[in-house]
Amino acid sequence: MDGGKSEKLSSEDYKAGYRLACLATVKGNLTIRLSDEVRLGTGGITTIVPERHRAAKHIYDIDSLKKEGIFEPPVKKYFLDLPRPCAEDNMADSGRVIQGLKDLYNIRGMSIGLTVLRKMRRALRDDDFKVTVTLVRPVNEKARTLVVNIQPGDWTERSYGLAMDIGTTTVNGRLVDLRTGEILAEKGDYNKQLSYGEDVISRVIYAEKPKGLELMQELVVTTINGIIDKLLLSAGVDRDEITSITIAGNTVMTHLLLALEPHSIRRAPYVPVSTFFPSIRATDIKLNLYDHTVALLYPSISSYVGGDIVAGVMGSGMYRTSTLTLYIDVGTNAEIVIGNREWLVCAACSAGPAFEGGGITFGMRAAKGAIEDFGLNPVTFEPMNVTIGKKPPLGICGSGLLIIVATLFEHGLIDQRGKFNRNLDTPRIRKGVSGYEYVLAWKDEADSDRDIIINEVDIDNFMRAKAAIYAGCKTLVEEVGLQVSDLEQIILAGAFGSFIDLDSAMTVGLLPEVDPDRVMYVGNGSLMGCRVSGLSNHIRQNVVDVVRKMTSFELSEVTGFHDQYVGALFLPHTEASLFPRVNKRLSHLHKRSDQDDN
Amino acid sequence: MDGGKSEKLSSEDYKAGYRLACLATVKGNLTIRLSDEVRLGTGGITTIVPERHRAAKHIYDIDSLKKEGIFEPPVKKYFLDLPRPCAEDNMADSGRVIQGLKDLYNIRGMSIGLTVLRKMRRALRDDDFKVTVTLVRPVNEKARTLVVNIQPGDWTERSYGLAMDIGTTTVNGRLVDLRTGEILAEKGDYNKQLSYGEDVISRVIYAEKPKGLELMQELVVTTINGIIDKLLLSAGVDRDEITSITIAGNTVMTHLLLALEPHSIRRAPYVPVSTFFPSIRATDIKLNLYDHTVALLYPSISSYVGGDIVAGVMGSGMYRTSTLTLYIDVGTNAEIVIGNREWLVCAACSAGPAFEGGGITFGMRAAKGAIEDFGLNPVTFEPMNVTIGKKPPLGICGSGLLIIVATLFEHGLIDQRGKFNRNLDTPRIRKGVSGYEYVLAWKDEADSDRDIIINEVDIDNFMRAKAAIYAGCKTLVEEVGLQVSDLEQIILAGAFGSFIDLDSAMTVGLLPEVDPDRVMYVGNGSLMGCRVSGLSNHIRQNVVDVVRKMTSFELSEVTGFHDQYVGALFLPHTEASLFPRVNKRLSHLHKRSDQDDN
Repeated sequence: MDGGKSEKLSSEDYKAGYRLACLATVKGNLTIRLSDEVRLGTGGITTIVPERHRAAKHIYDIDSLKKEGIFEPPVKKYFLDLPRPCAEDNMADSGRVIQGLKDLYNIRGMSIGLTVLRKMRRALRDDDFKVTVTLVRPVNEKARTLVVNIQPGDWTERSYGLAMDIGTTTVNGRLVDLRTGEILAEKGDYNKQLSYGEDVISRVIYAEKPKGLELMQELVVTTINGIIDKLLLSAGVDRDEITSITIAGNTVMTHLLLALEPHSIRRAPYVPVSTFFPSIRATDIKLNLYDHTVALLYPSISSYVGGDIVAGVMGSGMYRTSTLTLYIDVGTNAEIVIGNREWLVCAACSAGPAFEGGGITFGMRAAKGAIEDFGLNPVTFEPMNVTIGKKPPLGICGSGLLIIVATLFEHGLIDQRGKFNRNLDTPRIRKGVSGYEYVLAWKDEADSDRDIIINEVDIDNFMRAKAAIYAGCKTLVEEVGLQVSDLEQIILAGAFGSFIDLDSAMTVGLLPEVDPDRVMYVGNGSLMGCRVSGLSNHIRQNVVDVVRKMTSFELSEVTGFHDQYVGALFLPHTEASLFPRVNKRLSHLHKRSDQDDN
Repeated sequence: MDGGKSEKLSSEDYKAGYRLACLATVKGNLTIRLSDEVRLGTGGITTIVPERHRAAKHIYDIDSLKKEGIFEPPVKKYFLDLPRPCAEDNMADSGRVIQGLKDLYNIRGMSIGLTVLRKMRRALRDDDFKVTVTLVRPVNEKARTLVVNIQPGDWTERSYGLAMDIGTTTVNGRLVDLRTGEILAEKGDYNKQLSYGEDVISRVIYAEKPKGLELMQELVVTTINGIIDKLLLSAGVDRDEITSITIAGNTVMTHLLLALEPHSIRRAPYVPVSTFFPSIRATDIKLNLYDHTVALLYPSISSYVGGDIVAGVMGSGMYRTSTLTLYIDVGTNAEIVIGNREWLVCAACSAGPAFEGGGITFGMRAAKGAIEDFGLNPVTFEPMNVTIGKKPPLGICGSGLLIIVATLFEHGLIDQRGKFNRNLDTPRIRKGVSGYEYVLAWKDEADSDRDIIINEVDIDNFMRAKAAIYAGCKTLVEEVGLQVSDLEQIILAGAFGSFIDLDSAMTVGLLPEVDPDRVMYVGNGSLMGCRVSGLSNHIRQNVVDVVRKMTSFELSEVTGFHDQYVGALFLPHTEASLFPRVNKRLSHLHKRSDQDDN
């Protein structure tokens, strides 16, 4: 047991083995001996944060691409040592390059654009007909391969790609070595569009104003350019060595990046300009990269299931397993995909921003002072708040909210409908300005001018969010004739997924019940997808199949969805049979609780 | 007999039937009665310009394209009346357009660029999902069709194309209605590059200077833009209604237009940057057209056989006949193509600019005052000059030069080697500053300060030019195992071809002997080719086959070419058997001439 040092603990006490449990990190099995004071006040039962079931991290096995023979970036450099022209062989420079690609690499069906033709004579002759050409392989096998750059000499050892996830809130990028697949740098920043609205709808509304679309594009491009600068600096890579940038974002973000009018996305029947996007030159959208850098954009599924989700499906590999998988990305919005290599269905859930702290009285992002874990003394109902950075509590972040609600429910402080038990003997439960509430930290504990609380409105918002996700899953699964209980694997994407306590998530009915060992998190799934499709044209080609295969549901239009949603507005669910393990555990807890009462 | 009026002829004489033969046009059979004065001075033999055998004009039969079902422009507008989106059908705008093209026109395999996507939402909704899209069909059937424009409403009735021939000296354009194939306007201008050199080599040399290539591009683009302005004004067509511009030029002109470095073209082994050129947006080369206008460029064969010749082969239709054809384009340079639908060979002939007036003491372009036809009194050897615009003679244009040399030869004033007969009794033959010469017009006849003459150096230059062309033909034909006498048809391109006297051309051995009825001229063959491939994607696809089929010879590298050339440096040729009809006619003439002498 590490840590647990504090000004509140004398060094004498520390030497004697005393620790502040709220500041200590459990690293293995341990025996806790409580101080007499604690034991005295609580009848031997104390407030302790239980061990949490975090999801295991899914790491993409780049080596498997090599083993499968599909480690072949869509944009790749090839070195050519060409025969010099002579009277018997005076074909044009471009013909010579095309012939060389055929002879040396068996690559056929080329197109060479004007920009490359303009550099070609000099490039061929600067290093005696030894050149490096950069090719963009087509998505469609029948289409033509494009020559996008020619350089004198051999530059194949310096070939880098960027992966870029354009989130509504944050933009994240990685710099990848296209020869090895290695991630050389990773950087992120807030999307500069944030000052024009927190969600996609407000961005669309802004883009509809005169010059609004141009501004939205400029802001996100500036954000990306800043991240590119940091990535290049951090990895020591020259800008002209970037051969490709693979970009994914939700449908609105992609529209704004490309300056496509997003107007119809926010109005029924919710029509984007396009779901497939052409490969373009990075400079076409003013990215601060060279003319020869190709920008590849992930296609979307619909107005509300975007390229970031498609990228996540690719990055998680769920599209090529037989395991029936649920993929959830909880960000500013929540999207779910269910299926396997045979079929895929998807939907956006109007979960609202509760998991990002939105709509919660003391909700906040996962920053210092945010309660991220929580324990409860089952006798005194006194809380144990674990905050990020071990600071006095300031508010509640998404993972904390989930644990707080689950813990309050497990200990009977709230009922299945999320309403407080008003009969418990604790000053922590009280009537506040917005109905009943539980005081997580008194203002002096919080070093604040007011108490940190969670109230029934907050819990209600949380329940709406989790109900939307669960009902979305259940609706989608049943639309293909299966049951939620058939789900074999859950993949969590987004920052939320890496911190989520799986027991709590199942206790409240946010996630369907599966063996916690079959839950994985991918972190930024969109970024992972960008990286792998930037490394493998085969995977990039698979994207098209995946998009064609994926059936998108507009949940509000599906008969029965509303009933599913109402059914999920309980903890964990109105149908107890959907959560057998939770119910078993809770009955045990409640039994013990009953015993304690006696 | 029309015309022949002049201030020099009183109206009384005119009524009596007198005509000035030099101003009269022969329209049918006629009997000439000479005035007594003429008969008296010449022993009954006078100076008369014989009837000329001009080539018949080859006119491309656009209707045949329609009959064959290949009247299908590579860039074409399609009208779509699309279903409106609804909850059951909310596919993206781009998907809706692609689906419409499939449903209504059975067109598949589309790509839509960013520019069109940016206009799409508004275009679809401005006229209730009735739109006109402009498609570029691929050359390669397997490649993708590109959507380059979308407009609200039905604009299919306004679709125009430009055909543009970029000559070293002049640039010529036509505006064509893409629905009917009709030529609505035709305009030309001198290539503004002219002030930087008259031939392609001096342009290349200039382009090698710093900023030289940019300037050369700017000059030709300015020239084209000026012609486009005139064409639009003349036809009353709006600039945005131009859907395509098809361009052909020699290899250097095409390189300069596209700003491709022409440096290696002028140095052995004469390598252009490219012989195939990508379809581009007209705005990519700064043409003053819209973003949606596509520029299609004719491919070249080699450094010295350019896209203008390929276009001529397409426009003349020689690539699809079984008739063994000789195609000659005499411009600033001379290029020849021989073959039929089975095979094609080609070469550039270093003919020099004699036919454009270059290297001839009194050579000039076909402008007012240029001697364009010529007769000779076989007794007095007095000339009859016919000038353009009936002005006093200023010099000799190409067609005049040919006739003068042929006439001098026919009447024995020069021998087979082009040397003057110094024994004739005429003051017109004399020793000048550059050897012997014939006075075409005394300075007072010419209204000039000096006599207009043709000398042995001029004749020598002429003979080199005609020998280069003839030897080129003979070499090419023999390379494929045939004889010049096997040629069944001659197609003449360029301004020269339309004025050339076929008898003279065969007399001097410029053209192989064929039935004059089997000689046609196409005028600007390059422009004709641009028009037809701009009207038929099928023909545009054939261009690729033609280019692949066409074998290019660098004549100077072909063994035996020099001997052929030396053999052709005679009038008509050292091998009399190659010109049986000429020799028969000449022996008759010489016989009569002998009789006269007796």
